[in-house]
Amino acid sequence: MEAGDTATAEAPVGERARYILGVDLGGTNIVVGAMRADGATQHAMHSVPTRAELGADAVVARIAEALERSIAETCAATGATRADFLGVGIGSPGPLDRKTGLVIFTPNLGWRDFPLRDRVSAAVGLPATLDNDANCATFGEWWIGAAKGARHVIGLTIGTGIGGGIILDGTLFHGASDVAGELGHITIDSTGRRCGCGNYGCLEAYASGPAIAERAREALAGGEPSILPELVAGDLSRITAATVYDAAHRGDEVAGHVVRDTAKFLGIGVANFLNIFNPEVVVLAGGVTQAGDALFEPLRAEVRRRAFAPAVEACRIVPGILDGNAGVIGAIATFAQQHGLA
Amino acid sequence: MEAGDTATAEAPVGERARYILGVDLGGTNIVVGAMRADGATQHAMHSVPTRAELGADAVVARIAEALERSIAETCAATGATRADFLGVGIGSPGPLDRKTGLVIFTPNLGWRDFPLRDRVSAAVGLPATLDNDANCATFGEWWIGAAKGARHVIGLTIGTGIGGGIILDGTLFHGASDVAGELGHITIDSTGRRCGCGNYGCLEAYASGPAIAERAREALAGGEPSILPELVAGDLSRITAATVYDAAHRGDEVAGHVVRDTAKFLGIGVANFLNIFNPEVVVLAGGVTQAGDALFEPLRAEVRRRAFAPAVEACRIVPGILDGNAGVIGAIATFAQQHGLA
Repeated sequence: MEAGDTATAEAPVGERARYILGVDLGGTNIVVGAMRADGATQHAMHSVPTRAELGADAVVARIAEALERSIAETCAATGATRADFLGVGIGSPGPLDRKTGLVIFTPNLGWRDFPLRDRVSAAVGLPATLDNDANCATFGEWWIGAAKGARHVIGLTIGTGIGGGIILDGTLFHGASDVAGELGHITIDSTGRRCGCGNYGCLEAYASGPAIAERAREALAGGEPSILPELVAGDLSRITAATVYDAAHRGDEVAGHVVRDTAKFLGIGVANFLNIFNPEVVVLAGGVTQAGDALFEPLRAEVRRRAFAPAVEACRIVPGILDGNAGVIGAIATFAQQHGLA
Repeated sequence: MEAGDTATAEAPVGERARYILGVDLGGTNIVVGAMRADGATQHAMHSVPTRAELGADAVVARIAEALERSIAETCAATGATRADFLGVGIGSPGPLDRKTGLVIFTPNLGWRDFPLRDRVSAAVGLPATLDNDANCATFGEWWIGAAKGARHVIGLTIGTGIGGGIILDGTLFHGASDVAGELGHITIDSTGRRCGCGNYGCLEAYASGPAIAERAREALAGGEPSILPELVAGDLSRITAATVYDAAHRGDEVAGHVVRDTAKFLGIGVANFLNIFNPEVVVLAGGVTQAGDALFEPLRAEVRRRAFAPAVEACRIVPGILDGNAGVIGAIATFAQQHGLA
């Protein structure tokens, strides 16, 4: 078994294991990998640059190449053959149409009405499914991660933006036209910060990675002493959410304040989701998990202040545990569920 | 057929019609009535005072008495017999536990852990179901009202508070512990108005009936000319949302501004629900429907400004059409659905 494998169980004796491939397509990187269809083992997880500037055809070719490598490595590690691979689950930025497999529009990739599902399917000769990347990340945490086995789960993935996923009765909820779950785009301040979506006061405008960095730069303008400038060699434009978490861990007051404000903003959003959905688990994934208890403790306190007590009692608020692989694992899980395997 | 009946169809020839009773329990009034189990006809809808101050036993007795009257009148009008009544659907303020039939807590009635479902069931000798009153109101609009036949529906009932109901795939969504759908208690302004729930900046704190009246009083303090004081004979404490809608219809500028602000606040909330749920219909019920297009047009415009275009395109935003009977009709519908009849 090679280094990339994280097998935790063997296939039942006398029953041949089947595998599902996954793709998590991002604006910067594509993550691919394979899992046993029951979710028990992961194989050959790789990240390759997307290079969207080369065009959609080139991206499909890179996806296919990476999938072939995952197939070959998985076969080498497990003794499987190509016939043991059932299909490919694909997670992509949206909006998209699951029924037709079209990516309707992705600003990061510059695509419109691109038949991603069928192009990938044709390239590797396997059936494929398509779902939203943030949906997949939440579904991955539900399948084998921090929200495993819960009935109703709300997921937020915090990165360049804030993506959301809604799992109700163990199934992703997609709404009337596959655009449900835009949980980063709820207004938490009606006259607040401008959001990239055009709206004002969205949760994303306060608590995405770039928004956290921006608020840190604003805080520094107050002139209080901070190690933040030193951490970026004086170039404040290089501050990221990770820099802020790092400084806060080291006891920096300015950064600590930014983290507590982030906890407050996320807490407002999470409290809304508790009052709306009464979920069993809220899982927060992405860079935010690096902040640890410094963020999660004040976040949970804000939720207790704002949400109804019975909803608070029913819900765990936890960091995701699958890191960068949540999306590809969830893409595999969506394929598995749609084919009656999960 | 008596005056209270609104029969629109007869039972199929050769098939005996069955009926379901309903109860919509409020802090001030109890609405009861009966419907044919397929929702085709309504019978003997009555409203009686709750008189909660007499205690829970007295309220149960009043409910039973009103139900007996509905049974008698329905029998007289349709030729049905008591054996044709299948059961009672009950809508009650919450939080409640549907499985055990307990009303856990209702500030308006002063009840704690009261076994309302089983007490009503025993009093009339019929099986009963229990659900939240705002859930029922939304479900009524879905069954035979403004959201009839839609798959995913979000309902807001605007009165003393703002209640919510969530219908996904044609079924009410209840969450992990039956407290999902508190849609009036989402924060739309993180540092905003204090809400009765203890939180700050809830939608309810801006757009409930009392909040609308309060904002009108605040607007009058600006000293601009308005017919509002005249409409309440100089006693500003008597201003209600209905007074504001009335004045706005008559062209009053101050009232018109309050209505447009109400539309903006509700539009923020509805935009959030579009980005979260991507529903086919949002139905707004309660007093707010009296405001008509003066409220619904700017509300829809605010939603278009704030929500994602594909979600806006997929959704109708409409006033409820069942008025004060939505709750009792929905209570009947929940019984019908739970017994495989709707």
